[in-house]
Amino acid sequence: MSRIGAQTIKIDNTVSVSSWASVGGNKEYEGPLGEKIDYVCMDNKFDETTWEKSESHMQQEIFSRILNKSGKSKGGIDIMFAGDLLNQCAASHFAHREADTSFIGLYGACSTMAEGMALAAVFTDGANSKNSIALASSHFFSSERQFRFPLEYGGQRSQNAQWTVTGCGGVLISDENCGPFIKHVTFGKIVDMGINDVNNMGAAMAPAAVDTLSSFFGDTSSNPQQYDLILTGDLGVVGRDIMKTMMEERGYKMDNYNDCGCLIYDFEKQDIHSGGSGCACSALVMAADILPKIKDGTYEKVLFIGTGALMSPTSSNQGESIPSIAHLVEITKN
Amino acid sequence: MSRIGAQTIKIDNTVSVSSWASVGGNKEYEGPLGEKIDYVCMDNKFDETTWEKSESHMQQEIFSRILNKSGKSKGGIDIMFAGDLLNQCAASHFAHREADTSFIGLYGACSTMAEGMALAAVFTDGANSKNSIALASSHFFSSERQFRFPLEYGGQRSQNAQWTVTGCGGVLISDENCGPFIKHVTFGKIVDMGINDVNNMGAAMAPAAVDTLSSFFGDTSSNPQQYDLILTGDLGVVGRDIMKTMMEERGYKMDNYNDCGCLIYDFEKQDIHSGGSGCACSALVMAADILPKIKDGTYEKVLFIGTGALMSPTSSNQGESIPSIAHLVEITKN
Repeated sequence: MSRIGAQTIKIDNTVSVSSWASVGGNKEYEGPLGEKIDYVCMDNKFDETTWEKSESHMQQEIFSRILNKSGKSKGGIDIMFAGDLLNQCAASHFAHREADTSFIGLYGACSTMAEGMALAAVFTDGANSKNSIALASSHFFSSERQFRFPLEYGGQRSQNAQWTVTGCGGVLISDENCGPFIKHVTFGKIVDMGINDVNNMGAAMAPAAVDTLSSFFGDTSSNPQQYDLILTGDLGVVGRDIMKTMMEERGYKMDNYNDCGCLIYDFEKQDIHSGGSGCACSALVMAADILPKIKDGTYEKVLFIGTGALMSPTSSNQGESIPSIAHLVEITKN
Repeated sequence: MSRIGAQTIKIDNTVSVSSWASVGGNKEYEGPLGEKIDYVCMDNKFDETTWEKSESHMQQEIFSRILNKSGKSKGGIDIMFAGDLLNQCAASHFAHREADTSFIGLYGACSTMAEGMALAAVFTDGANSKNSIALASSHFFSSERQFRFPLEYGGQRSQNAQWTVTGCGGVLISDENCGPFIKHVTFGKIVDMGINDVNNMGAAMAPAAVDTLSSFFGDTSSNPQQYDLILTGDLGVVGRDIMKTMMEERGYKMDNYNDCGCLIYDFEKQDIHSGGSGCACSALVMAADILPKIKDGTYEKVLFIGTGALMSPTSSNQGESIPSIAHLVEITKN
């Protein structure tokens, strides 16, 4: 029985994040992690004619780069887990028509990368796959058009708004004994504290991250001091502060805590307000920065908590609040 | 190692579909399975003010009915798998804000019920959950508004179009030794044969069903004659005929084959053209009709292949074809 506590699953067998790849646009390249991104397209188009196709192109790029890096063929991948923010997750579906690989479509908004990694870990732990790929993408331009305004409208963004990352990140999860290793996963519950400002998704998502992280600490009898880094998906500056405050109110000291949305852009030089967001935010930060740092020993133990705001434009137009979710993956060097 | 062949996962441990529930609207009630549906709302509103909320209401109804039928509390459910057709899967997310249960959001279009059942079976097989719920919903009125035209427009439907089922179906997957039992699952690949007529989704999805079903037969060295019923999700009359022809061209005799989209409505009395569709189509047919018939011995061995058309209105407007997917679940009485 691998399940411990109320929500956490202990990964009993060897499960490694054995390869990863990252793709980004110009704004991501100009940020502090820019030089670490595997492949950058400065016009964000990736030689495609629509933003939606550009996003699919990024997912294809990740898929083939992971195959190349790991020396595997398509036939060596048992299953893939993918999702994105577009209606009906179209970026993922159109990307993988030629992948010739079993496909599990996810919708977890910006928590998708963590959701996919956690599912892949469970599959690998149970010997249901030897090699699987989890990936997630977002594109500023396809998201703006779908969730907000046409770009040509030039809409003003509020100061607590976040900037959707143009990019894609993916990982190969395998039963090889190479590490970094996944040791626990915690699938979150849907949490809705009544926030209905779609320009403040960090505030909406923070309580979900608090809920999942607290559950993990409870289930595993652990605490923040046992980790070199606790990293949420994309709460941005506003949400990160709320998260930290709420965790400290629950008695957890959060000195080693940060957020992917606060790491991907340069707050002084880039006009991104509260930080980065989108499925690609945490996917890109993990693949470009955090996983290499676990591999090289900069970090020994990391908790990655992907966060997602689960509203739709229709629900927001109908006056609804923003349900949120957070999924956790524990990753260690040894 | 539970994986057999290229795509199929053998469920080694006891995994039962131990409870189920179904909800529908007036058109579903007036169809041949009407009397078997657990709860019907004749005005399709379920006491809510928007169609989207009505759809969430149906998911809540299923969740609480499964708890009641199985005598479990919320705390007894380890995890739930849910999805729907609304943008950002909003029906599922708003439904389960109070569920207080780990939540895995899926997007598999009309294959969602099979996708969720297959994932729940893998989780149960690996002792990652004892009791999990998989459910999927769709609503004719919320779908028409999102995918086609406002209802008030009174758009004409083509003869090969399908009718989106208003309803929800769900199952409890557990490690109890009660049956019906899940023995194998096969997660499908994305298949796109270039069909781009959004009024003919059956034709777009049939090749995906053929791909998954053929893979299953290959992986398990089995054939159609070993099953009392082979049931696709919602290909409708047009897609069912294509499916049958394609399978027969591959050498499989398909006498015991049918499709949920052909079972849910009365073709003579109800104006539904090619049949039913939507996530709820297969979810409702399984929960109201097929699972009870496996339980009572009418069927001993059933292959359920959920089928999903993975396009979005945006992709169709951009001239793209319709990628599709099919996931398979083998269910037996003993």
